[in-house]
Amino acid sequence: MNYKITLDSDEVPKQWYNILADLPTPLPEPKNSEGKNQIADLQKAFTKAGLEQEFATDRYIKIPQEVRELYMQMGRPSPLYRATRLEKFLNTPAKIYYKREDTSPTGSHKLNSAIPQAYFAKKEGVERLTTETGAGQWGTALSLACNMLDIECTVYMVKVSFNQKPDRKNIMNIYNGNVFASPSENTEIGRQILKENPDHPGSLGVAISEAMEEALLNENVKYSLGSVLNHVMLHQTIIGQELKAQLEKAEEEPDVMIACAGGGSNLAGSLFPFIKDKIDGNSDTEFIAVEPSACPTLTEGSYDYDFGDVNGFTPMLKMFTLGHDFVAPSVHAGGLRYHGMSPIVSLLTKEGYISPRAVHQKDVFDAGITFARCEGIVPAPETTHAIRATIDEALKCKQTGEEKTIVMNFSGHGMLDLKGYASYFEGTMQNAK
Amino acid sequence: MNYKITLDSDEVPKQWYNILADLPTPLPEPKNSEGKNQIADLQKAFTKAGLEQEFATDRYIKIPQEVRELYMQMGRPSPLYRATRLEKFLNTPAKIYYKREDTSPTGSHKLNSAIPQAYFAKKEGVERLTTETGAGQWGTALSLACNMLDIECTVYMVKVSFNQKPDRKNIMNIYNGNVFASPSENTEIGRQILKENPDHPGSLGVAISEAMEEALLNENVKYSLGSVLNHVMLHQTIIGQELKAQLEKAEEEPDVMIACAGGGSNLAGSLFPFIKDKIDGNSDTEFIAVEPSACPTLTEGSYDYDFGDVNGFTPMLKMFTLGHDFVAPSVHAGGLRYHGMSPIVSLLTKEGYISPRAVHQKDVFDAGITFARCEGIVPAPETTHAIRATIDEALKCKQTGEEKTIVMNFSGHGMLDLKGYASYFEGTMQNAK
Repeated sequence: MNYKITLDSDEVPKQWYNILADLPTPLPEPKNSEGKNQIADLQKAFTKAGLEQEFATDRYIKIPQEVRELYMQMGRPSPLYRATRLEKFLNTPAKIYYKREDTSPTGSHKLNSAIPQAYFAKKEGVERLTTETGAGQWGTALSLACNMLDIECTVYMVKVSFNQKPDRKNIMNIYNGNVFASPSENTEIGRQILKENPDHPGSLGVAISEAMEEALLNENVKYSLGSVLNHVMLHQTIIGQELKAQLEKAEEEPDVMIACAGGGSNLAGSLFPFIKDKIDGNSDTEFIAVEPSACPTLTEGSYDYDFGDVNGFTPMLKMFTLGHDFVAPSVHAGGLRYHGMSPIVSLLTKEGYISPRAVHQKDVFDAGITFARCEGIVPAPETTHAIRATIDEALKCKQTGEEKTIVMNFSGHGMLDLKGYASYFEGTMQNAK
Repeated sequence: MNYKITLDSDEVPKQWYNILADLPTPLPEPKNSEGKNQIADLQKAFTKAGLEQEFATDRYIKIPQEVRELYMQMGRPSPLYRATRLEKFLNTPAKIYYKREDTSPTGSHKLNSAIPQAYFAKKEGVERLTTETGAGQWGTALSLACNMLDIECTVYMVKVSFNQKPDRKNIMNIYNGNVFASPSENTEIGRQILKENPDHPGSLGVAISEAMEEALLNENVKYSLGSVLNHVMLHQTIIGQELKAQLEKAEEEPDVMIACAGGGSNLAGSLFPFIKDKIDGNSDTEFIAVEPSACPTLTEGSYDYDFGDVNGFTPMLKMFTLGHDFVAPSVHAGGLRYHGMSPIVSLLTKEGYISPRAVHQKDVFDAGITFARCEGIVPAPETTHAIRATIDEALKCKQTGEEKTIVMNFSGHGMLDLKGYASYFEGTMQNAK
């Protein structure tokens, strides 16, 4: 049998799929908070193309040929694998497939949006992109993309992560990214914070402020985000479109599709092209978004207007949120600790198209280790959330005897985030909630 | 154009290629040193299948179907990529292809031999395999393979590496391997050394002795090696046979083929099926083995009988050697610090079929970073040696205008060995020699 379904380079999709054209109810617009004009600021900080795509209503948006070539050169289409050893281990009648975004050179799906963002920036004459990074996946991808497009990249990395994860800084340097521990001396806000407290540990909010300050003060500098926003979800739909072609090749119809959700981008990318069919009434696939119980945005948050960042620097977005001042307990899945959620993913969850599920930290590492021992690949802590739900669904099939086809998005590998596994084996891992 | 050449699962070769059937002169036999009987010891330590394959003379040896399935389940055949961005950056008329052994779940080619070794051990009723590991790639692969075949795995890791590389221990634990810092309390020799010096830093020689002691004293325990020996070279030929099919698909004839060489296994695996054609008089491809100038076994060693290990524990093998008491200066490519070389690779070098080349540490990291910035993938320190020679050959083509086809084996990724890159950027990297 064929354990993997590959596509040739020239089968990389020619268009991104824009779900804004198909939403069951209109997406609420971003708004300013009272007396402020964050929308205007944000518009100044982003590239023109990013803003255009953010509000575009065309169902399909052409992928520029140069971007397609870069996708191909970076190994796309990514392969789809059948998890036969895991199926056997679980003794389930279910069939389990996983789409391998870990095969990207930077180890996750993030490059899918980093490449077009760097491409459009270059085309608009931008000389440098700035961004923030927490866990490090986004900063890594943007560093590589900017280097390929021959523009500079500045990454503000939360100081405490910067110090704990020297390998992350290291790999961004390999890709020619300039990485600074935030707060830094580069910006007004950084200097101010350091003056008050030279040992400030940093936060994602501060890092965002630093990255945005640079973009607001310098004409040739733009700010770039790796999740949450509509145009990022759009770019990621390359995953789901490939996946459709691969499942057709395998003659499979998915009964359940699963992805982890932090800001929403790997979920949107892999599932939106399938959710379209459900909106159109042509599918009864179940879509599951998996989040940590320590940061239960979709399962326990409220659907409301809130800031995208901790400081109230951004416009207000209608989304599921735990409150912009929510501080998630320290968990190893740094990419799933966001208080909010992509407005589109939020709306689709509100409307019942996506079923959210929260899982505990020890249980996800259990699942991740089971997966690694069966299938070989060590998942990123974020990805273990999707694996937990996949295993749980497969075990349900074992009970009911149903031969469901379960498809999950394997968002990234764990090679640079093995500390969580160490604490699991040392017995020091906590279920944060 | 197609940037990658993939093969389906069922295109995994059905046989290993055994170059012992085709060598231009017979391979000198291992021998005992005076007054000792190391051959008998070694025979007791290894599995029957391993010993049989070590001296087999059939040109092709059938791969058991269970092993083929495991190769497939672990993602084989591995893809072949065209390095178009690197070609453009170098402005060379040469075409550059690289075979991606880094796509193995454990990140290198090592699983290709770990799987059959664990399979044959299981078949013979062995309950546990022991091995030593320096850099960690082999211990990682054997841990996963043993777990898949449901036998135990004990890895003796040189204590100083054990302490410096917690992520390596960690990933072996994920794969259910039992990793001990060597010297350990598990063995007579370990206890003796620790009694004399509780802070002994360990060495590969001590780790080998511990792993072998366990195999010699316990009937159900066997010892396993990840390079140097003929049967390991044999298993690795899965790489070169896939590569042949892929180059045919791409309608390419290689002019130059390149691999790095430590013990010889990734080189043997990728090149032997092509060297056969040269022995047969049907090819004039040039084959280049690349080693660190800090450990110049093939370029400066002598072709002589020597021990495989530092302590004189193993039989004597006829090979290129720097002397079994040679201590290579500390370089970041831990997998290329071996004093000897596969006897077969040594013979083929002696006979002029393989051209050896030594390269300096800073130059290889230069090449590795250039590669990562062009092609995205961060190479293992060992692999950067092959990249250096590939770039040098491509630059020669730029001078001469020759449109050569250069094919290299990309033996592994560097995600768990990023420290070398850090010292490169910090400016503390030395050219050891």
